[in-house]
Amino acid sequence: ARNYSISVIPGDGIGKEVMLEGIRVLERAASLYGFSIEQKWQDFACCDYYAKHGQMMPDDWKAQIGNPDAIFFGAVGWPDTVPDHVSLWGSLLQFRREYDQYVNLRPVRLMPGVPCPLAGREPGDIDFWVVRENTEGEYSSVGGKMFPGTDREVVIQETVMTRHGTDRVLRYAFELAATRNRKHVTSATKSNGIAITMPWWDERVEEMAKHYPTVTHDKYHIDILTAQFVLNPDRFDVVVASNLFGDILSDLGPACTGTIGVAPSGNINPDRTAPSLFEPVHGSAPDIAGKGIANPVGQIWSAAMMLEHLGENVAAAAIMRAVETVLAEPGLRTGDLKGKASTEECGKAIADAL
Amino acid sequence: ARNYSISVIPGDGIGKEVMLEGIRVLERAASLYGFSIEQKWQDFACCDYYAKHGQMMPDDWKAQIGNPDAIFFGAVGWPDTVPDHVSLWGSLLQFRREYDQYVNLRPVRLMPGVPCPLAGREPGDIDFWVVRENTEGEYSSVGGKMFPGTDREVVIQETVMTRHGTDRVLRYAFELAATRNRKHVTSATKSNGIAITMPWWDERVEEMAKHYPTVTHDKYHIDILTAQFVLNPDRFDVVVASNLFGDILSDLGPACTGTIGVAPSGNINPDRTAPSLFEPVHGSAPDIAGKGIANPVGQIWSAAMMLEHLGENVAAAAIMRAVETVLAEPGLRTGDLKGKASTEECGKAIADAL
Ligand SMILES: CC(C)[C@H](C(=O)O)[C@@H](O)C(=O)O
Ligand SMILES: CC(C)[C@H](C(=O)O)[C@@H](O)C(=O)O
Repeated sequence: ARNYSISVIPGDGIGKEVMLEGIRVLERAASLYGFSIEQKWQDFACCDYYAKHGQMMPDDWKAQIGNPDAIFFGAVGWPDTVPDHVSLWGSLLQFRREYDQYVNLRPVRLMPGVPCPLAGREPGDIDFWVVRENTEGEYSSVGGKMFPGTDREVVIQETVMTRHGTDRVLRYAFELAATRNRKHVTSATKSNGIAITMPWWDERVEEMAKHYPTVTHDKYHIDILTAQFVLNPDRFDVVVASNLFGDILSDLGPACTGTIGVAPSGNINPDRTAPSLFEPVHGSAPDIAGKGIANPVGQIWSAAMMLEHLGENVAAAAIMRAVETVLAEPGLRTGDLKGKASTEECGKAIADAL
Repeated sequence: ARNYSISVIPGDGIGKEVMLEGIRVLERAASLYGFSIEQKWQDFACCDYYAKHGQMMPDDWKAQIGNPDAIFFGAVGWPDTVPDHVSLWGSLLQFRREYDQYVNLRPVRLMPGVPCPLAGREPGDIDFWVVRENTEGEYSSVGGKMFPGTDREVVIQETVMTRHGTDRVLRYAFELAATRNRKHVTSATKSNGIAITMPWWDERVEEMAKHYPTVTHDKYHIDILTAQFVLNPDRFDVVVASNLFGDILSDLGPACTGTIGVAPSGNINPDRTAPSLFEPVHGSAPDIAGKGIANPVGQIWSAAMMLEHLGENVAAAAIMRAVETVLAEPGLRTGDLKGKASTEECGKAIADAL
């Protein structure tokens, strides 16, 4: 039988709660679809670990994680005790880089049962992917301060893009578009204002496009692109963006479909030289943590993305059908979707719908 | 009688068309409210000028502009002949810097007659300001390339923030909030990912807030903030942001209220050491240029902001009332708002409604 090893990292806050439901659904899918999941739970990459050890992860975290087929991740962050940039740079952002998960892939899809904040849109109208560069660009720790603490203070932060890092994510986006019906790539840029990296990004897009004659492409400046997400979200197929722009678009997209609490993401190493990591788009949500009311769908949908990455496409599709069935049922949805179910009830309902 | 000198720079594309209506309304307001406007039209800061001279502006542009009370600007850019980063850095972005227009101020307001893409929102529900830093930050031309044209290519772009530049725009935002009912400032950050400038930005916000005990404040990371613009736009009062984040938010905000074609902006030098510049948020729109169908309201609303800056508050308020009257009338709106009026008809209607 097919067997997959999974590293399970629940993290903080509601991460710990929704993870249980993600695992529940994974295990049910495994028993129904004839594969098995070997879980290795990790107690690091969370602020509790930080409280005990003064760092987010042990020095030998890579050895402890070993070489799993994938990492299943909850959510990290507890700003009351650890500043966000410390907790994130010490965990999630390290995984993305150290495991060369250079694609962050997030669906934007209007789902049944999820109230859409945009007027007059129906499930089916909006269905696209955001492909985000996930290892370099604007998320750098290069830079520093001059004259710190004085009136003359100057603070510099460098955006670093490489041809290697840019081309590979562009290639992924064009490859993905080539598999889809509309075969269209939209590039997020800001070459009218950000005068060095962004005109160069545009050039790389044009170069890559030459290799994909069946795929059409266009570009929008990020300001107007965010506007287009609201005004014409049905226009998009595959949107490719730098680390920061992709971060923005992959929160905004789910917001436009009302699905921010249910959206998943894959941090993918397409070359499979290291494990990929799957996590919900939402964060650790300290305000609702511990109440058992968090929506587990983002975690469960992430499980489906993970299974697809592992080649279990049939099980992945079944989970998505179960998710859609449950979302369409007000009694089985959590409170954020105007339902009454607890995290656990919603998770169990999805497992049962399988 | 009160007399104001205005430098008029129509720019490219629909900039040239909407400017005529902006001027029409300004002149009408002047004659009705007892002041006069002395106009000095400039033929530079447009791509036609570039075609003739190989640069966007003459070397002595500052001398030619002189010392007007304000600059009334249309829109710049004609990417078919001049790349955007060349046309913008050679005109608008130079004005912002050289005239130290360190605040870019843009209203986000739901207007009658403008179809709102968000479900269930009514005029009055959404009414806030975006205060954008307008001279430094992510819009820098500092950086460069290593190993250009090779597989090893590395491209670096520096974000440069100064305490001087940051504190003054934060102060403006808190001052503005102090004059409003809700007295609330929201800061756009990304201190969890952008590890040097943004945690420092957060510190400066906390420092500034101490001087304004009657003003409340909070912060959102830019990704989730864009989501909140869609999900809870009624939550905001004054939003303060860096150059790039402010650029994004001040296009997204108008998109959420459907008003991107009618929104105005002020590029303001609050210390009045140089002229401020007023322009619509929309660009030169090459796709509809020359047809006489562009919506002139963004330009006209910018005229109202300019008059307010000049102290002509009564005339400014009258223009806004006239705008609201005309927007509420389908026959007087332009095609983008499902009306039938031409640019000129809409502009004349607003002048007449005065
Ligand atoms: C045209 C462009 C350089 C400009 C900017 O990004 O500042 C525009 O988008 C704006 O917001 O005024
Ligand atoms: C938590 C934060 C550092 C992270 C990011 O910006 O990448 C998150 O917003 C995401 O999108 O996964």
